[in-house]
Amino acid sequence: MIEIDIQNALSETIGLRNGIGSRVLSNFLTKNKALTGKVFQSKSKMGYGFLGLPDDTKLAKKIKSFSQAQKKNKWDNIVVLGIGGSALGGIAIRDALLGSFNLLRKKPHLLFIDNIDPDFVSELFDSIDVKKSLFIVISKSGGTTEPMALYSLTRQELTKKKIKNQKKHFIFITDPKKGILRPIGKKEGIHMFDVPPTVGGRFSVLSSVGLVPVALAGVDITALLKGAKKMRELIKKSKADKNPALLLASIQYLLDKRRDKPMTVMMPYSNTLFRMGDWYRQLLAESLGKNKKTGPTPINALGTTDQHSQLQLYSDGPEDKFIIFMKVLKHNKDLTLGKDLPKELSFLHGKQLSDVLSAAYKGTSEAIAKNKRPSITLNIPKVDEENLGAMFMLLEFQIALLGLMYKVDAFNQPGVEQSKIITKKILSKIK
Amino acid sequence: MIEIDIQNALSETIGLRNGIGSRVLSNFLTKNKALTGKVFQSKSKMGYGFLGLPDDTKLAKKIKSFSQAQKKNKWDNIVVLGIGGSALGGIAIRDALLGSFNLLRKKPHLLFIDNIDPDFVSELFDSIDVKKSLFIVISKSGGTTEPMALYSLTRQELTKKKIKNQKKHFIFITDPKKGILRPIGKKEGIHMFDVPPTVGGRFSVLSSVGLVPVALAGVDITALLKGAKKMRELIKKSKADKNPALLLASIQYLLDKRRDKPMTVMMPYSNTLFRMGDWYRQLLAESLGKNKKTGPTPINALGTTDQHSQLQLYSDGPEDKFIIFMKVLKHNKDLTLGKDLPKELSFLHGKQLSDVLSAAYKGTSEAIAKNKRPSITLNIPKVDEENLGAMFMLLEFQIALLGLMYKVDAFNQPGVEQSKIITKKILSKIK
Repeated sequence: MIEIDIQNALSETIGLRNGIGSRVLSNFLTKNKALTGKVFQSKSKMGYGFLGLPDDTKLAKKIKSFSQAQKKNKWDNIVVLGIGGSALGGIAIRDALLGSFNLLRKKPHLLFIDNIDPDFVSELFDSIDVKKSLFIVISKSGGTTEPMALYSLTRQELTKKKIKNQKKHFIFITDPKKGILRPIGKKEGIHMFDVPPTVGGRFSVLSSVGLVPVALAGVDITALLKGAKKMRELIKKSKADKNPALLLASIQYLLDKRRDKPMTVMMPYSNTLFRMGDWYRQLLAESLGKNKKTGPTPINALGTTDQHSQLQLYSDGPEDKFIIFMKVLKHNKDLTLGKDLPKELSFLHGKQLSDVLSAAYKGTSEAIAKNKRPSITLNIPKVDEENLGAMFMLLEFQIALLGLMYKVDAFNQPGVEQSKIITKKILSKIK
Repeated sequence: MIEIDIQNALSETIGLRNGIGSRVLSNFLTKNKALTGKVFQSKSKMGYGFLGLPDDTKLAKKIKSFSQAQKKNKWDNIVVLGIGGSALGGIAIRDALLGSFNLLRKKPHLLFIDNIDPDFVSELFDSIDVKKSLFIVISKSGGTTEPMALYSLTRQELTKKKIKNQKKHFIFITDPKKGILRPIGKKEGIHMFDVPPTVGGRFSVLSSVGLVPVALAGVDITALLKGAKKMRELIKKSKADKNPALLLASIQYLLDKRRDKPMTVMMPYSNTLFRMGDWYRQLLAESLGKNKKTGPTPINALGTTDQHSQLQLYSDGPEDKFIIFMKVLKHNKDLTLGKDLPKELSFLHGKQLSDVLSAAYKGTSEAIAKNKRPSITLNIPKVDEENLGAMFMLLEFQIALLGLMYKVDAFNQPGVEQSKIITKKILSKIK
């Protein structure tokens, strides 16, 4: 299971100015241990629905048999038309399990179209054969401009290519009853999956929103759910000081409020986990960025890559960051270096690439600690479905706890309305 | 030419708590106008060499004829083995000019391998045909672990595939005299290009480091250099209040130091410009993140995508950010929406997609300003070689000016050494 190493966040390691004392942490955990129960008790309330998702084995079966049936269509591309929470979870799973060079290899390709840049969208249609593509429109309300505009454009494109049976090329994922998309789907006879009413967009990765696209691309969604369930049970049964979600939330909160660390960097030492940081970035920012004052700012980084871009700032710039490192304990593949490099690099001779990456992580995390900046490490046994599922649950639970600690509603996003209103007003004026 | 709109950073628009008064700005510009001349006078000094790069038309010709000659090899893949400044400029140009779905379309594919994650590297070799690939090893000193490890692994892979004439598959870009890579290249008879000694990695995009890879993929490097030169001349001849680099640097500095905005978000409304933000992220962080106290933290965002992820935090969270929007005035392609969406979305009917994107930018930037948070907008006439070249020069010049304002050496990165030392020590102990 995923383990959290908190040594480098403690004042015993990095000093009192930037670190949290073990005693302080222990007291805080005791004081807040009831919050875990409070989250579990809220299970049926708006927003907290994410907790129940791993139990929906019926849905998993349905999605699997649907994916199986779709195989006969031999799609070249599974194209998700969705934005924010409708895309980020799926992207995180895709990059973790299907790899970085998937477009050069296996079909079907899994693409996420999460913007309305005309160059980007035109290029999509120039690059894929729509006849061989399945489009998944994801919007809980159906009122989101981007996926709906993309849906309209895709229909146009199918018509342009003289495709008659268009409904075959679409899946909708939307609210089971409410919203704009549901009636369109009914009228057109399009296959639909539900976004459960109590699950918000950014907490929806383990619902059909995240599961349907990746199942169609071959991911084992049962294992994803199994991992999430295991993590949920671990959180439920653990004592306060062993509860990974409470530990993570408490350290995050204490570093922000008592040590003035308004930025949280998520830095996996793994290309496969990089976009997990993007998913977490929405979760953290939208859930906690409230009331003109609360909310740490999430930042993504990648090890070792960003050692050559951001490490100078992280080690030697202002002491305003908390870093969450992610370390993969066992890689799926490995390579052995030769002995052909010049003597200045002889320390690389014959080494496993995983050992080099591992040493770079250790070097960086130790250097950061020596410079008295707080960090923790999530040790991930292996990048697979189960551990990903566990990670999603861990981080979602952490955010639910942080909502209670910061005393904000972690499940709304009132601050984005104004932009939408002005945008609509501007567009309504254009003839 | 690129224009800067500063209205939403001024106290006259967003109030005194977070905005800069026009008078204050004007006085600051007058007080600091000599800095522009100081940068130009330092042209031959270490670090400032980036200023002269647009004049090297000889190099551009050499690279172009080299690229022309390489066509006969019909490479499927141009693979850059480089990290940090050896990759980020090229990635920014590739994404801006070759598009997001390039891997689905035209060959040669341009790939940047900027990490040593064993899963990532193994997947690369599983996905490409090394016989049809040209590898560009980029390291000024040749002492950087990542590209050198990748070079060694690539040779192994070529050997495994029984490729005899290996030197044909490599290009080195390195210091003209010093370092480890130069003698290897000489011994092996590998074609080499120079990294000019006075140009640092993160300022090297307009040297052979950035130019060679993209020229091989078909980018017009002469136009890139032309745009950079135009911007440099504009900076040189402009009065203080019209000098885009001085304006940009002054606003950045004043917002950080006098309005306590330690974070700078770069948010293009364009997928093509997103990775430009990644390039700038290194430039800003490594150049200014110094002395345990200076240096704003760069953050990347994408419009409209991150309206559905970060906007809640940016509008309604703590007032600690300065946003640089980037707006493309004329897209290379456009699409027209149909009139098939339900009445709730009728404001989209018949609209150009570029107008929808534009309205979203306006809605967001106005909402941000109404919430009294500072932003500026870089208006970019069009995403093409010339404007990209101009942008690189503008932002590099801005950072050189900021180095003088913050009184730090913008061209070193002492804070990354400790990590390297520990890493090497760990690896030396592994048998």
